[in-house]
Amino acid sequence: MVLGHLIPRAWQCHSPAMCRTHLADIGHSCDDGCHWTLMFYKTSTFSFSNSDCLVRLSNPNVATMKEDVLYHFSLSTSTHDFPAMFGDVKFVCVGGSPSRMKSFIKYVAEELGFDRPGVDYPNICAGTDRYAMYKVGPVLSVSHGMGIPSIAIMLHELIKLLYHARCSNITIIRIGTSGGIGLEPGSVVITRQAVDACFKPEFEQIVLGKRVVRSTDLDKQLVQKLLQCSTDLSEFTTVVGNTMCTLDFYEGQGRLDGALCSYTEQDKQAYLRAAYAAGIRNIEMESSVFAAMCSECGLRAAVVCVTLLNRLDGDQILSPHDVLTEYQKRPQRLVGYFIKKSLGKA
Amino acid sequence: MVLGHLIPRAWQCHSPAMCRTHLADIGHSCDDGCHWTLMFYKTSTFSFSNSDCLVRLSNPNVATMKEDVLYHFSLSTSTHDFPAMFGDVKFVCVGGSPSRMKSFIKYVAEELGFDRPGVDYPNICAGTDRYAMYKVGPVLSVSHGMGIPSIAIMLHELIKLLYHARCSNITIIRIGTSGGIGLEPGSVVITRQAVDACFKPEFEQIVLGKRVVRSTDLDKQLVQKLLQCSTDLSEFTTVVGNTMCTLDFYEGQGRLDGALCSYTEQDKQAYLRAAYAAGIRNIEMESSVFAAMCSECGLRAAVVCVTLLNRLDGDQILSPHDVLTEYQKRPQRLVGYFIKKSLGKA
Repeated sequence: MVLGHLIPRAWQCHSPAMCRTHLADIGHSCDDGCHWTLMFYKTSTFSFSNSDCLVRLSNPNVATMKEDVLYHFSLSTSTHDFPAMFGDVKFVCVGGSPSRMKSFIKYVAEELGFDRPGVDYPNICAGTDRYAMYKVGPVLSVSHGMGIPSIAIMLHELIKLLYHARCSNITIIRIGTSGGIGLEPGSVVITRQAVDACFKPEFEQIVLGKRVVRSTDLDKQLVQKLLQCSTDLSEFTTVVGNTMCTLDFYEGQGRLDGALCSYTEQDKQAYLRAAYAAGIRNIEMESSVFAAMCSECGLRAAVVCVTLLNRLDGDQILSPHDVLTEYQKRPQRLVGYFIKKSLGKA
Repeated sequence: MVLGHLIPRAWQCHSPAMCRTHLADIGHSCDDGCHWTLMFYKTSTFSFSNSDCLVRLSNPNVATMKEDVLYHFSLSTSTHDFPAMFGDVKFVCVGGSPSRMKSFIKYVAEELGFDRPGVDYPNICAGTDRYAMYKVGPVLSVSHGMGIPSIAIMLHELIKLLYHARCSNITIIRIGTSGGIGLEPGSVVITRQAVDACFKPEFEQIVLGKRVVRSTDLDKQLVQKLLQCSTDLSEFTTVVGNTMCTLDFYEGQGRLDGALCSYTEQDKQAYLRAAYAAGIRNIEMESSVFAAMCSECGLRAAVVCVTLLNRLDGDQILSPHDVLTEYQKRPQRLVGYFIKKSLGKA
């Protein structure tokens, strides 16, 4: 029984301190404000104690809409029963590649004991090829494509989906790939802080022609929990470091091998070494807007990326296909174990 | 016989004026610098006169690389024969959705008489799910996902692919969807100029921590030719106008229905009306970097997008699925006809 459905939407995040206290015993903190309730609820697979952090929106308009079409998911509140479809979701994992997010849901299903022989996991967003979405038990797995705009569209619609479904106590983790700085390829980086291409912990965007800057805070407790999971697993090197989020893979990350390049190897090395000195251990293309939007909507969030190469040694991704495939499974294994442990199944 | 393959790479764009003159008789202009040669070449399907605009890179490093791995295409110069696979390409069409770009190649194959019963068009990038690529005769169709970073990665690798294949006289057109301003839904906009969210005809990016601004010029002659094609077809309203390119679909385009929104309907209307006054007729998320990169590498480029709604009337895309599907075919029909006419088959 999921009593979360019965909690009025208006009872939303107001007391971060209370929320942190009341969630402590199940290993969750609520990074942003949360109203706590006196209700208990329990699903067939795991239980939360006397507190709920409902997903909130930072937009009063949505509550007044008769219908909400999530266009890029090909889902709508008038044609789909969001509370029934998604009300029990507690963990959302997002990543760039649709096929990787399908692999992840299969892996999680096996790990959590939800897999049934011959049962496939249908793409919930089969009506579109913009994103792919899979679900098993309390875990939702969603692809987001590449780059800040692509993940931002997905996050707007995902956060509205979780809100319409009246989800509570959500943990959202981006599992991805990245270029490392000063790390052995295959190392996993848990992001301490997402920074921009000037090493600032900010996400800047233009809204109605004006510059808006948001912070890129991530949940500190969640970082430590994930690091502990990596220690428990003891399968690969994991570090906590800053992650640089850029708007381009080639010039934007100082690569020398794009169609355009107007700087030298020395310029590039100086930039990457300055990044390292600023605590940056990897570079990818989605973490800043992910951190900013999740923080704004009260979702505890983390970013876990494997490094496919050490950018101080080169630009091209030259490792054999099977090696890269194994690297890409590392964030999945770490986050899969974290979910299992959170549910008391590890 | 495609003599383009025999032209040394070093013979590259140096004389824009000459190139413009020598291509005038076949209805092409070369927007950027081009070296012309005295060679003639002819394929079985169409002919160009005494001039070649080879694809050039704005990066001297690539010519010195032993191998070039186009990671996001899952193609490499050491495992694929690019001149044999792509040397005859003359038209490249790009669009966000993989399935739409597959539909386009089927449509073009029928229109150009290349289709054979029961023959499918395999995805050339089947080794990855980042992008999809299809080819028939001189036409290449490539998906680019959503947003500036996603299309930029694709363009870096596409332009290098065309360079390695020694392609010449390329016309590249983005066929996409957009939100219209002050137009009936279903109208097609041929972009005069791509502008940013502050209405400036610029593309700004951060390279090695510093701001770099590039112009977003598009080929004026190509705009007129495409407009003439729409007049020939006489099937739907087509206008020439400025296109605003944003980094976000919700707040970045003044929508009121995202997970985050901190402005009013009045603020939004004022912004969209100011955009209209600045000559903007539609909003999408890729045109500025597309124009900037193509211009920098001497590719004549155009952007042709259908409008799915009039943003002055609302934010949600509410038209029925079959109506939207028909709208999405309009840029395909226009550009398909343009290619047919360019090849003397219309």
